[in-house]
Amino acid sequence: MAAKDQVKALVFDVFGTVVDWRGSVSRELIAFGNARGLKADWVEFADDWRGLYQPAMEEIRSGRREFTILDTLHRENLLKLVAKYNLKGLAEHEIEHLNTIWHRLDPWPDVVEGLTRLKRRYIIGPCSNANIGLAVRMAKRAGLPWDVILGAEVARAFKPTPEAYLRSAAALNLAPHEVMLVAAHNSDLTAAAKTGLRTAFVARPDEYGSKRAADVATDHAWDIATDSFIGVADAMGCPRR
Amino acid sequence: MAAKDQVKALVFDVFGTVVDWRGSVSRELIAFGNARGLKADWVEFADDWRGLYQPAMEEIRSGRREFTILDTLHRENLLKLVAKYNLKGLAEHEIEHLNTIWHRLDPWPDVVEGLTRLKRRYIIGPCSNANIGLAVRMAKRAGLPWDVILGAEVARAFKPTPEAYLRSAAALNLAPHEVMLVAAHNSDLTAAAKTGLRTAFVARPDEYGSKRAADVATDHAWDIATDSFIGVADAMGCPRR
Repeated sequence: MAAKDQVKALVFDVFGTVVDWRGSVSRELIAFGNARGLKADWVEFADDWRGLYQPAMEEIRSGRREFTILDTLHRENLLKLVAKYNLKGLAEHEIEHLNTIWHRLDPWPDVVEGLTRLKRRYIIGPCSNANIGLAVRMAKRAGLPWDVILGAEVARAFKPTPEAYLRSAAALNLAPHEVMLVAAHNSDLTAAAKTGLRTAFVARPDEYGSKRAADVATDHAWDIATDSFIGVADAMGCPRR
Repeated sequence: MAAKDQVKALVFDVFGTVVDWRGSVSRELIAFGNARGLKADWVEFADDWRGLYQPAMEEIRSGRREFTILDTLHRENLLKLVAKYNLKGLAEHEIEHLNTIWHRLDPWPDVVEGLTRLKRRYIIGPCSNANIGLAVRMAKRAGLPWDVILGAEVARAFKPTPEAYLRSAAALNLAPHEVMLVAAHNSDLTAAAKTGLRTAFVARPDEYGSKRAADVATDHAWDIATDSFIGVADAMGCPRR
């Protein structure tokens, strides 16, 4: 059966798929550095910050550490980089301002229109490693019209652990095949597909700038492969009206 | 400090406060009975169904039973009433249709306008004993513009257990005094106030029809006492624009 006749909810990876974390974080860091008279390679700082993300979650996925929300992991990683980059004299409110950059990420240009169309026919929500407090503030600022916020904090498991997907589907009273994950990352989609979710790949070629090649859909049999949320809405039968 | 200068999120009791469960459930039961040629006092059936709600949750609050979502409790209670009312020959899809009446409850007339105004300035979400799957379907059908769905399933605790309120505030990265509970029931507001939440009472005199008197705000020092979500929006400084 076609995905669009079976799926009742679409859930979304957020960092990279919905929002341009690298552009947003580095823009805010540069503005902060200028205002504060601090010099650093802020794009590299953003990449380093993101680079500490998977290892921090791996401590929890492996069972070595109990479940901890992403805001806390981001803050621990930020403090490591403040030391590494030798940024002296930051006040607590400045650390908090920097850490909440992740609450203020900008969506890719096609996102709000695509989500608005999909929301008319399907339940939509993030299935992200973000905590609820982060995801809800990002959504209000960016105008993301989620019906529900799912993901790590509701599932108490970080992707790509199977429970992160399965408990998100269960929280919606849905079987895995009634839920589609939309993501720009093949590893996320592969893990979701193994648990029975339907899959939509959205290419985000600029996620890592020129630093690293973004994923492409080639060689994977995703239900949908496209380059925008408009493409997902078209494929899922949600008209422009 | 005035509530409106401190509060960052408003969370809402749902059954009775946001939606008219008694009117909605009995209307659907009557329509079902007529279509199916089944006779019963359907308003009493609705009251009986709601009457089994607190005892079912009490099994879980007391620790005698592990956490179970409300859709499951509703279904168990429905099956008891199908036997009590001697309704014979219901098919599985009919049981499911009846159980999901709770997904299709109508809001009181002031709700969508009040929430829409409050959403411009505050994070809004249900803090209900409903599970996520129930709450999200109700919201989509009724046009409730929630930013997030909180409550029993996120907190893994039923109100009025303190954790139901405290974990909802924590999920938003907020201290209890930064969150206001809006409810039509003094017992709910009393429990929330004990955990440090701010409180708004909204009178819903018709919740129980002529069967039972609804709560009034008298004798309680709630931060706000009003009779509609418009009144809450006015008190919280959210203009009509």
